[in-house]
Amino acid sequence: MELEKENKKENTVIKARILAMQEEMAHRGIDFYFVPTADFHNSEYVGEYFKVREFLSGFTGSNGTLVLSGKQAGLWTDGRYFIQAEKELEGTGIQLYRMQEAGVPTIEEYLAQEMPEGAVLGFDGRVADAAFGKRLEEKLSAKNIAFRYGEDVADAVFGSERPALSCGRLWILPGHLCGEDCNEKLARVREKMAEEGADAFLLSKLDDIMWLYNVRGSDIACNPVAMSYTYITKDDALFFVQEEAMTQETKSYFAKHHITVKPYGALLSYLREIPRTAKVLIDMENCNYLFYKTIQEAGAATVEKANPTTRLKAVKNKTELQNMEEIYLRDSVALTKFIYWLKKNIGRMKITEVSAAAYLDNLRRQTEGFLDLSFPTIAGYKENAAMMHYEATPENCSELALEGMFLVDSGGQYLGGTTDVTRTIVLGKITDEMKEHFTAVACGMLRLTGARFLHGCTGRNLDILARELLWKKNIDYKCGTGHGIGYILNVHEGPQDIRWRLSRQAEAPIEAGMAISNEPGVYIEGSHGIRTENVIVAKNGEKNGDGQFMYFDTLTFVPIDRDGIDAAYMAKEDIDSLNAYHQAVYEKLEGRLDADERAWLKEVTAPVAYNF
Amino acid sequence: MELEKENKKENTVIKARILAMQEEMAHRGIDFYFVPTADFHNSEYVGEYFKVREFLSGFTGSNGTLVLSGKQAGLWTDGRYFIQAEKELEGTGIQLYRMQEAGVPTIEEYLAQEMPEGAVLGFDGRVADAAFGKRLEEKLSAKNIAFRYGEDVADAVFGSERPALSCGRLWILPGHLCGEDCNEKLARVREKMAEEGADAFLLSKLDDIMWLYNVRGSDIACNPVAMSYTYITKDDALFFVQEEAMTQETKSYFAKHHITVKPYGALLSYLREIPRTAKVLIDMENCNYLFYKTIQEAGAATVEKANPTTRLKAVKNKTELQNMEEIYLRDSVALTKFIYWLKKNIGRMKITEVSAAAYLDNLRRQTEGFLDLSFPTIAGYKENAAMMHYEATPENCSELALEGMFLVDSGGQYLGGTTDVTRTIVLGKITDEMKEHFTAVACGMLRLTGARFLHGCTGRNLDILARELLWKKNIDYKCGTGHGIGYILNVHEGPQDIRWRLSRQAEAPIEAGMAISNEPGVYIEGSHGIRTENVIVAKNGEKNGDGQFMYFDTLTFVPIDRDGIDAAYMAKEDIDSLNAYHQAVYEKLEGRLDADERAWLKEVTAPVAYNF
Repeated sequence: MELEKENKKENTVIKARILAMQEEMAHRGIDFYFVPTADFHNSEYVGEYFKVREFLSGFTGSNGTLVLSGKQAGLWTDGRYFIQAEKELEGTGIQLYRMQEAGVPTIEEYLAQEMPEGAVLGFDGRVADAAFGKRLEEKLSAKNIAFRYGEDVADAVFGSERPALSCGRLWILPGHLCGEDCNEKLARVREKMAEEGADAFLLSKLDDIMWLYNVRGSDIACNPVAMSYTYITKDDALFFVQEEAMTQETKSYFAKHHITVKPYGALLSYLREIPRTAKVLIDMENCNYLFYKTIQEAGAATVEKANPTTRLKAVKNKTELQNMEEIYLRDSVALTKFIYWLKKNIGRMKITEVSAAAYLDNLRRQTEGFLDLSFPTIAGYKENAAMMHYEATPENCSELALEGMFLVDSGGQYLGGTTDVTRTIVLGKITDEMKEHFTAVACGMLRLTGARFLHGCTGRNLDILARELLWKKNIDYKCGTGHGIGYILNVHEGPQDIRWRLSRQAEAPIEAGMAISNEPGVYIEGSHGIRTENVIVAKNGEKNGDGQFMYFDTLTFVPIDRDGIDAAYMAKEDIDSLNAYHQAVYEKLEGRLDADERAWLKEVTAPVAYNF
Repeated sequence: MELEKENKKENTVIKARILAMQEEMAHRGIDFYFVPTADFHNSEYVGEYFKVREFLSGFTGSNGTLVLSGKQAGLWTDGRYFIQAEKELEGTGIQLYRMQEAGVPTIEEYLAQEMPEGAVLGFDGRVADAAFGKRLEEKLSAKNIAFRYGEDVADAVFGSERPALSCGRLWILPGHLCGEDCNEKLARVREKMAEEGADAFLLSKLDDIMWLYNVRGSDIACNPVAMSYTYITKDDALFFVQEEAMTQETKSYFAKHHITVKPYGALLSYLREIPRTAKVLIDMENCNYLFYKTIQEAGAATVEKANPTTRLKAVKNKTELQNMEEIYLRDSVALTKFIYWLKKNIGRMKITEVSAAAYLDNLRRQTEGFLDLSFPTIAGYKENAAMMHYEATPENCSELALEGMFLVDSGGQYLGGTTDVTRTIVLGKITDEMKEHFTAVACGMLRLTGARFLHGCTGRNLDILARELLWKKNIDYKCGTGHGIGYILNVHEGPQDIRWRLSRQAEAPIEAGMAISNEPGVYIEGSHGIRTENVIVAKNGEKNGDGQFMYFDTLTFVPIDRDGIDAAYMAKEDIDSLNAYHQAVYEKLEGRLDADERAWLKEVTAPVAYNF
């Protein structure tokens, strides 16, 4: 083991790129430079053009910021990626900063500490959000740091290897999938603008724009969005989009709805000319720093509030919810068929993480209404599953065998909804400890599903229902329990989520119609990873003098592997919940399976016996 | 019923007082005036001198603000007091505003809505906290409202009936009860001041001052505090206190510790003279508006942060915790003896709410180390218990009988701790529904006690553990689940609490050594009230890669009435918890009881059988 450690290979490719960055920084007189993982819209997932941090550092996770000085390189990422980042950064000389761990500085704190008085901080203000830029301003003001936010240093290093900015075709969501006309949505948005005292609204968030205009694009893999902005005033709505993305049909559609289409690149000059009296609502988390400064320099006022569209979009309307119910059943069928196939064929043919994922992806592709995956399928066997967002590659993936557990987190984009589901499948013998963990995760998921709560609760109030059984074993999972989920849109959306920690982010009360993932897990580095994830929808229950009571309905109906369950670790109420869920799984899916699959499903959804 | 409503009596005394206020307001040119429930220190409970709102409105609850205009009178109070306030305000013409209910304006919103442009708002700036004053400034700025904060209008109406400002003797806490010298505490406070960038600290909060100097007073019933302020700089500590409160002994004590004693009334002129360069830390919630404005007018800067003392005080040291353990056992003995007495004598002698409370208070008084009650005993029979903070009076109290439930919430101040405990005692036949409620409350209390959680959790994360069983029945209790509790100090203290709602108040992570009450309840207006309350202390458990795990220890050991428990409503785990608790109650108390009591305790703490 010692020997191995000393022999760790140098990653010469990444080292060379970091060095090139540092040379270019020196050339431009920049002392510190940072590269976030963002596009011009602060999207969570970005197009290939924007994968600069990944290119420079070799770290492929969906969240991370590279910070460079003349001598040092550091990468900040969150708990989902600690194990993966450690591996991928090996031999690069880049230091890993584990965000939110005790004693680990934030990027702002790091810069405030490391940057000398009067030094120069460079970054590309188009890919840094305004909130972060403003925090940097505050944190670095005492040290008289110069901000050079027009610097795309990485572009020089990326050079000809850099992919082009993507430009897929924009398409109109058919009326039967919408439930609300875009002009009705605009009217509701304008109401919210008025409530916030704004007479204009610059919206950069791509999924919000798609939702607002009932359109979809394809500029980011798995995220059906088009690179665009919209600027809304009391009377006008301007839609900035790449001209090549538009067809005659979409042009007519926007014209018919009195929405003015402008070139994507025209927003910057447009903002320079807005009236000095304008009060422009911007979401500091999603508007980029360059636009924020441009509005300020134009002399207009900013109203710094959350995008009202985000909250409106999160509450699914009746049409959306009906379509989702059907789509989630279809998607559940695909995953259930996959589990059946895997259970029958493991040990009889060669199956790897990659080939298994491909088989599942193909089942989804064959599903009516399928458009795309909602994210690249995560398929992790044994200890690989301990990496929360592990991605197997054909060159580097495990072969499955008749032992241990296989975690599959996957989802699809369909005409009628976006899905996200995780099951951990037991392939053979597992330890008692693994069963204990598996059972606690399943029970936690079911306990959160069974929550009754008052309107006004946020995810911070509810998180412990899913997590408590693990905390009682002195185990935690280093991420939230759940996230909002889009409708034929991003697999992660706000404002609601289920997490326990205080964060900068405003907490959003859970409203009827919000869809949320419910995915507790156990991740034991080097051993095993377990996650069980359903999507649930908040509903209104009884309303009385004590308030509006709420509950969750489940959208996902896929068996939870009983081979991982040990009733000895369950309360009677947990056994009842699991059995009721499995009965519903059987009833919802039986008519959509062939005879062999149905017989198997009957067996694997049979009730678990009480343990007394 | 209709007739009764129409015949509601006028409360002529209160009506006359309101009218006198309105006349005095008109005389002084004041359009709107408000009277909070506060002393100069924003204490939760106040001395008789400060009971102005109670005098003017007749509402006796511990929280409420009276707002008057020339024509209208409104009283704002919180959910604990809705039922009581309705009763007490009957016939006064004062409208009740139920705080935090949907559609009910805050006082700021009400004033902003009702006050005409350019009108005059009067109040006594000594009894309004700075945070509230600042919110008013912001809310009313658009309407150009004049603030007259030097106006004690009520004093003119109160007149000769007003009691004098109380002035009890200050006494020094014996060293074996402290665990930390006051100069050590001062050093820790000065560290926190430096961290916050302050070079001075005005502390108005009475219990914090008592804690800091290891002294106690007796100026507020049940709250062993002395009217005082302290102003701390890097080198000096000034203690402002009524001269009559000091003895030769206390004078020597302060001199020995290099703390300068000044007259209570001298602070205002002292603040007028502080250096313009001073950066004075004040807690806007506890510093009064007059002092806040005075510091500003002196040209000094305010550092507006929570009192660092509050957080330091909340974490009990080893000496304090050891003393509390013993004191809670003694207090538990008193309440257990009371329950024994009540169960044996109900139906055999006349017992009223008041006489029962007197019997219990007397048992406490006989307890070694007793100083005072920690609040007036709340003793509510049947539907009276639905009023969360009901206070029976000899003239108006119920007689107990062999049926229904009797709620007793009580506590004591002892040399060694402050207690707070509630038990609901079943006196005879109760309905199945009452048993269901009683059982859910007991189980909720025990579930919260059994919580395991990570350091960083606040009460908002944990509240649902106590409340969920009620929410599953579409029932809520309109208050928090728990509050911090002082050490020979106020029965309510911050910063920690257990509640689910987002509030303006900053959330405080629960730290090892914090004592917290755990008191879920059910309150059915006109029928019954149930509350079961223990005090628990947070402790550190295992620390591992996932963080510092924590748990609670229990301080209170009093049987939970098994006549209210129905195992049919309990999970097996709840039955186990209750039985384990009762076993501990028996083991801790048996040696402190006489033979009859011991035999009875054995019986009432016997295990509940499983329901399957």
